[in-house]
Amino acid sequence: MRTATIPSSMTRTPRATLRRVATAAAALLVSAAALAQSPTASPRVAVDADGTVHMPAQTVPVSDFLSPEAKAYLAEHLVNVQKPEMLVQENGVPPLLAGYLQRQRELFAVDRKDTTIGGVHAYVYTPKGGVDAKNRNRVLIDLHGGGFSNCWPGCTELESLPIAALGRIEVVGLDYRQGPKFRHPAASEDVAAAYRELLKTYRAESIGIYGCSAGGMLTAMSVAWFQQHDLPRPGAIGILCAGAASVGGSAFGGDASFTAMPLGESRVVAPGAPVGMDYFAGTDPKDPLVAPASSPAVLAKFPPTLIVTATRGFELSNAIYTHTALVKQHVDAELHVWEGLFHGFFYNPDVPESRDCFDVIVRFFDDHLGK
Amino acid sequence: MRTATIPSSMTRTPRATLRRVATAAAALLVSAAALAQSPTASPRVAVDADGTVHMPAQTVPVSDFLSPEAKAYLAEHLVNVQKPEMLVQENGVPPLLAGYLQRQRELFAVDRKDTTIGGVHAYVYTPKGGVDAKNRNRVLIDLHGGGFSNCWPGCTELESLPIAALGRIEVVGLDYRQGPKFRHPAASEDVAAAYRELLKTYRAESIGIYGCSAGGMLTAMSVAWFQQHDLPRPGAIGILCAGAASVGGSAFGGDASFTAMPLGESRVVAPGAPVGMDYFAGTDPKDPLVAPASSPAVLAKFPPTLIVTATRGFELSNAIYTHTALVKQHVDAELHVWEGLFHGFFYNPDVPESRDCFDVIVRFFDDHLGK
Repeated sequence: MRTATIPSSMTRTPRATLRRVATAAAALLVSAAALAQSPTASPRVAVDADGTVHMPAQTVPVSDFLSPEAKAYLAEHLVNVQKPEMLVQENGVPPLLAGYLQRQRELFAVDRKDTTIGGVHAYVYTPKGGVDAKNRNRVLIDLHGGGFSNCWPGCTELESLPIAALGRIEVVGLDYRQGPKFRHPAASEDVAAAYRELLKTYRAESIGIYGCSAGGMLTAMSVAWFQQHDLPRPGAIGILCAGAASVGGSAFGGDASFTAMPLGESRVVAPGAPVGMDYFAGTDPKDPLVAPASSPAVLAKFPPTLIVTATRGFELSNAIYTHTALVKQHVDAELHVWEGLFHGFFYNPDVPESRDCFDVIVRFFDDHLGK
Repeated sequence: MRTATIPSSMTRTPRATLRRVATAAAALLVSAAALAQSPTASPRVAVDADGTVHMPAQTVPVSDFLSPEAKAYLAEHLVNVQKPEMLVQENGVPPLLAGYLQRQRELFAVDRKDTTIGGVHAYVYTPKGGVDAKNRNRVLIDLHGGGFSNCWPGCTELESLPIAALGRIEVVGLDYRQGPKFRHPAASEDVAAAYRELLKTYRAESIGIYGCSAGGMLTAMSVAWFQQHDLPRPGAIGILCAGAASVGGSAFGGDASFTAMPLGESRVVAPGAPVGMDYFAGTDPKDPLVAPASSPAVLAKFPPTLIVTATRGFELSNAIYTHTALVKQHVDAELHVWEGLFHGFFYNPDVPESRDCFDVIVRFFDDHLGK
């Protein structure tokens, strides 16, 4: 056992500050042994004057920070997303996700009511164990993923079941209008219609809204929509697997288009390729109703906001940029990034990282929604 | 101006849920147009059964989310780190950073006192404008970066000047013992000695500790050291440009070894290459005094913790893993990730992103330190 006694050698005079360190490594970082390029093992990186990096091919293992379950899950995902047949949806559930949904149904006991709210088709999920006393006057709205074109009800179920059951709270999964049949702002109108109806029963500060992927985008878009249509802001929101910034470049923009796409989706997108969601055809990508992070003034009025992403989520850059932009406006914004995992990773309930994510979501709304 | 009136078409019957979407894209994501691999423009990604990704070469521009100033800064950094002469330190300041330090001295007016605290050499920085009334009974300790082998006082100044001046708070920059001459736990002992001395003047909850890179690691290590040596925990800490997890693999481990190294440091490290800091020679990388995140019990007793990193910081994976591990123990841990920037980016005070980062650090300690 080491002791806290300070050795006499420490009572020393200031060391000479003139020190020369010749090293091939960035001086402020780690030692040369780690950073020096091995001429045999590592290809060189070329950089253009404008900062463009010519990144050589690399062989990238699953992250050593992942749990064993998550390592196997990532491997399964990376192989499966390369098979087109895994993505052909049956009853709104792609085979890629069907197994995870089956497991969620086994794990998370909820009752589901098929209804309409404010004229919008919805599934209302109630935990079979009953709503927690503290959540009697609270409700969550889930806006499902699916690229504004699909995944109802598959993604709705995947996002609602664990939160309703683990959080012991009612969750409204909304069947908002999507492309290619519908165009923006149809989905925002649907969210507003359901929200307006829920406001007859719940106080705004006791309503939370969240969603993954397109649903995360729509969550942020809805808050901007409410601002422009004199609706009160909800108590808290969760932008999951998404960001609120303009989607200009490849995928969701930023570095993640280059790093997370190959490492999380087994594919490379051509630089500048449009995201190409029909739903947004004809919109201005800088319109705050489409990309709220385009407007600091809109962001400044956001409620407490949870942002969830992952290093292999192609939304990573967009999500963390959105967090930074919210923080800059002094919004109570909370960022959680999962190392080594991918877009929508928490749809699989059988990895510890997903459970940690559910816990973060449940606690966030519990901490921030009005009683 | 769109209105909030709900069109009658919304009062519709539930849509048929049987829907088949044949797409080459991940079904829950964005549309096929964005994600489909272009056979002409994009090389294919190969994935092994164990999830290892063979990532093809890519040409990666600076992130479109960066400010114009940060784009230029990143380009300058990526070119400069390839020049060995930029890293030969003169008076503890590498030429890579000398210009940024000069600018900081122009921007942030502080008085510097050369002293020893608990027998440890230190510079004490006091804002020329005076310490804010609310900070009279507070102090921050900065533990500088430099790979446990260099960068005193260059990195100390770069980390202390903006926080002391902008936060209007006293900052103690500690000249802790480093490798290759010294070995762990010499630095932890030095931090403990200075901390013990400061505890004669300040309450523990009014003392904050932070540092970048090696200093971020040492910040976390010090909290573990205090636990084992019956010292009270400080009021709050900042693990900047670093994590508290074991540094096993390349650089700081995880995906960032492959993504952030080329994009942030213009180099590739061979997989599995040791980090190779002499300071840690002979230590067990899983020892909580070396890597506190190895022990949930140690993490559970951490004070409020700020974690700052960036998508091109090679510490990204380690940093966010540490955040996730702290959150799992219900520690009040706050994560901020800057898109498109690199290890220690905020040493340059002339980009808006650095100013935002300074603001986050100042506000974090203001919110969490005892008065």
